[in-house]
Amino acid sequence: MVKLYNMDKISLSMLNLNIITLKLEGLEETIIYHLIERVQFKKNLIVYKPGKSGFQGYSSKSLLDIRLLFQEQMDAQFGRYCVPEERPFNKKLPALRRKVNLPQYPLALKNFNEINLTSKIKKRYHKLMQDICQAGDDGQYGSSVENDIYALQAISRRIHYGAMFVAESKFRSNTEFYRSLINGADYQALKKALTRQKVEEEIISRVKDKVTYAQAKVNPKIRVLIDPEKIITYYRNTIIPLTKEGEIIYLMKRQQV
Amino acid sequence: MVKLYNMDKISLSMLNLNIITLKLEGLEETIIYHLIERVQFKKNLIVYKPGKSGFQGYSSKSLLDIRLLFQEQMDAQFGRYCVPEERPFNKKLPALRRKVNLPQYPLALKNFNEINLTSKIKKRYHKLMQDICQAGDDGQYGSSVENDIYALQAISRRIHYGAMFVAESKFRSNTEFYRSLINGADYQALKKALTRQKVEEEIISRVKDKVTYAQAKVNPKIRVLIDPEKIITYYRNTIIPLTKEGEIIYLMKRQQV
Repeated sequence: MVKLYNMDKISLSMLNLNIITLKLEGLEETIIYHLIERVQFKKNLIVYKPGKSGFQGYSSKSLLDIRLLFQEQMDAQFGRYCVPEERPFNKKLPALRRKVNLPQYPLALKNFNEINLTSKIKKRYHKLMQDICQAGDDGQYGSSVENDIYALQAISRRIHYGAMFVAESKFRSNTEFYRSLINGADYQALKKALTRQKVEEEIISRVKDKVTYAQAKVNPKIRVLIDPEKIITYYRNTIIPLTKEGEIIYLMKRQQV
Repeated sequence: MVKLYNMDKISLSMLNLNIITLKLEGLEETIIYHLIERVQFKKNLIVYKPGKSGFQGYSSKSLLDIRLLFQEQMDAQFGRYCVPEERPFNKKLPALRRKVNLPQYPLALKNFNEINLTSKIKKRYHKLMQDICQAGDDGQYGSSVENDIYALQAISRRIHYGAMFVAESKFRSNTEFYRSLINGADYQALKKALTRQKVEEEIISRVKDKVTYAQAKVNPKIRVLIDPEKIITYYRNTIIPLTKEGEIIYLMKRQQV
């Protein structure tokens, strides 16, 4: 664990709420682009069905789960999971194979994986696909799961980054208040304290604009468009609440130092 | 090799030049999105230098080349390279591990890999990064190469798709004419015959619009923007000429049936 009250300037700047908010804003494009790429393929629901992959040696998993495992086995060796907000969907991944230079993260966790919402993220993602992809099966299973994984990783990064850094930042700005809610395990009060209605509305409005503009010059005869309303519903019902849920888990697991 | 003159309707529609042009147009967003994602990181030129990866067991390759090898080893098992326009940057990749349902491709090649421009694509890509990324090193090597690979795959797909399908389509629409140029190995005349100036100008103008609009709602304080002029220069000097070069190679290697 990092020594929280003995940190350098760079590490402490990671807890500036304005900087965190800007970073969260910058991750919106990544999520939007990957979802736009995914909807170019049909629902292809078979890729999410266990035992239907036809992939040798993995008879019980879905094609998405097999690809996600292979992707994460690769990513782990390259160091993705050394970064707090990059949480794996799988367990028992191979060891890191390169030297990575990491900043001193200003988080009070023994193990970043104490905050891991990937199982919920994946479940909600399946619903999102039902909602935004065109019905049917176009046989493009490889491309579908490839884009699923990029989108899932981008969504997960956004949720975990928000959960960890926003929570730590808010905790530090009002330590005694949060400590009393944590000690009382008062989840409702924590949720209320962590909610910034105005910021949430700004996110929704900005995401709507971004989805609209990103598709403004797209030819609808050859590209499938996403209705911006569906993405903001997903932000409202999934990304924002799961981030907040992660913040509460973070605060409850936060190491007292 | 496929029996070219005994194909079903679906396969023959793949040679409709209007359909090919629309598909090429649809690949533009994919390239643009991935380049936008890559420029969020600095040049990080060390990731392109052989022997500087710090990755165990691969002392002589660059970090990009190691990641590209791992990515393609994974992709090969999932079937990416069964598709004509998906050409690997590496040789000796593992065998396919799942059953893929492929259409009967209307191409007159013994082996799709006879058209493989990946080495040129990679070389030109390094120049593009010099041109569009911000100078410096932000230490984000893993994210840089990850986005490099998505961009390289999207660019390669566009070039190989154009090379193979446009060339076969044009050949069929004017068989005797092309046969005489092929038999005379008249590269200049082939290049001239394959050039559609008006179509090229339409591509350039459309790509410029797309890069502009994709970034219209981006906050320049937190996201790095790409100058649309740089992307259209890349289209003009690399994507379009390499596609044409691929078309000529295709015609010269085309199986006479």
